[in-house]
Amino acid sequence: MGIDDFLSSGNIRLDQQLKFSAEIDKMTQVYRRTLLISGVRQENDAEHSWHVAVMALLFKEYCIEEPNVERAIKMLVVHDLIEIYAGDTFAYDVKGNRDKAEREALAADKLYSQLPEEQGAELRALWEEFDAMETVDAKYAACMDRLQPLLHNTLTEGHTWRDGGAVRPHVEERSAIIKEFMPEVYNWIKKNIDRGVANGWLKG
Amino acid sequence: MGIDDFLSSGNIRLDQQLKFSAEIDKMTQVYRRTLLISGVRQENDAEHSWHVAVMALLFKEYCIEEPNVERAIKMLVVHDLIEIYAGDTFAYDVKGNRDKAEREALAADKLYSQLPEEQGAELRALWEEFDAMETVDAKYAACMDRLQPLLHNTLTEGHTWRDGGAVRPHVEERSAIIKEFMPEVYNWIKKNIDRGVANGWLKG
Repeated sequence: MGIDDFLSSGNIRLDQQLKFSAEIDKMTQVYRRTLLISGVRQENDAEHSWHVAVMALLFKEYCIEEPNVERAIKMLVVHDLIEIYAGDTFAYDVKGNRDKAEREALAADKLYSQLPEEQGAELRALWEEFDAMETVDAKYAACMDRLQPLLHNTLTEGHTWRDGGAVRPHVEERSAIIKEFMPEVYNWIKKNIDRGVANGWLKG
Repeated sequence: MGIDDFLSSGNIRLDQQLKFSAEIDKMTQVYRRTLLISGVRQENDAEHSWHVAVMALLFKEYCIEEPNVERAIKMLVVHDLIEIYAGDTFAYDVKGNRDKAEREALAADKLYSQLPEEQGAELRALWEEFDAMETVDAKYAACMDRLQPLLHNTLTEGHTWRDGGAVRPHVEERSAIIKEFMPEVYNWIKKNIDRGVANGWLKG
């Protein structure tokens, strides 16, 4: 028996929603460059998406404009779903980032067409808002998406930087939204960038 | 250097929040009985918490009372945090469930005291609301928390039931909130319980 036999509820909408719920299990197989803080293995997209969502409950007070935390969390739980088909593009991979937008738009078409139309549109709109990084809620979500791997990186002796041969200007560019939107948090990041360079984890 | 050196931001609140963010990485080491749908290994609490949060975006229309999806998602991303210290108690483990409430309250004390007081209280209140299963939002969140493992179980040939020696009345009791609050979704579950018994995955 195939997946369709198991999921057949007799209601086409419910079948689509159940099947989509099963499909996104694949997020647990999309591995990122980041090590888990425990160090046992690389983090997957499901773990990362959950971690940033919880962090969004904690750091609002450092934003220069007040975000709607609940909307930011909705964006964060779906922001990497397209990587099921597009894969994770390492933040400091120049070549991979050239065609990233195109790959991700195709992945979004494939992913969200599996849902009832208005639900697919709603989830896609959340991802697009996140990705555009223009609204206050999207800026806050983007800060969490960048702060969490920096925390992991700091606590795994610069693993991501060393592994990816990262250079300081790239790390600074990637963290620019935190510098702009959460300046006090950026002070902590800057301290860790300095330490990374001093320790030879990051090229100056 | 210890974790405190890396996390020292110069702001005690920010230090607490960063340290708490690092601490909850341990959710990736709390394994559940449920297999990932891919079947490669058991699911951990981080993956589960993320998965149910996304599902909460999809199934509202089947509820007999309309929940606030955003509040349900907030509950879902934190609902298992106490398992970092209390461990996962298998749903059909009668003995383990006897002292579950006490173990989890102690774990909550330990966990939430690591945050600035009002934030610890806010997150703890979300967990307590979830656990009491009395509000509409908590009922919806509880339904997602039960539907997701049933989906995984169905798509892994009853792995959780077979592995845990589950019996039909326990599964029905565990799903009772779905029967009450999302009757159409329960029809699909009932079909899978029937199939589980027919296939010998579940004791009738």
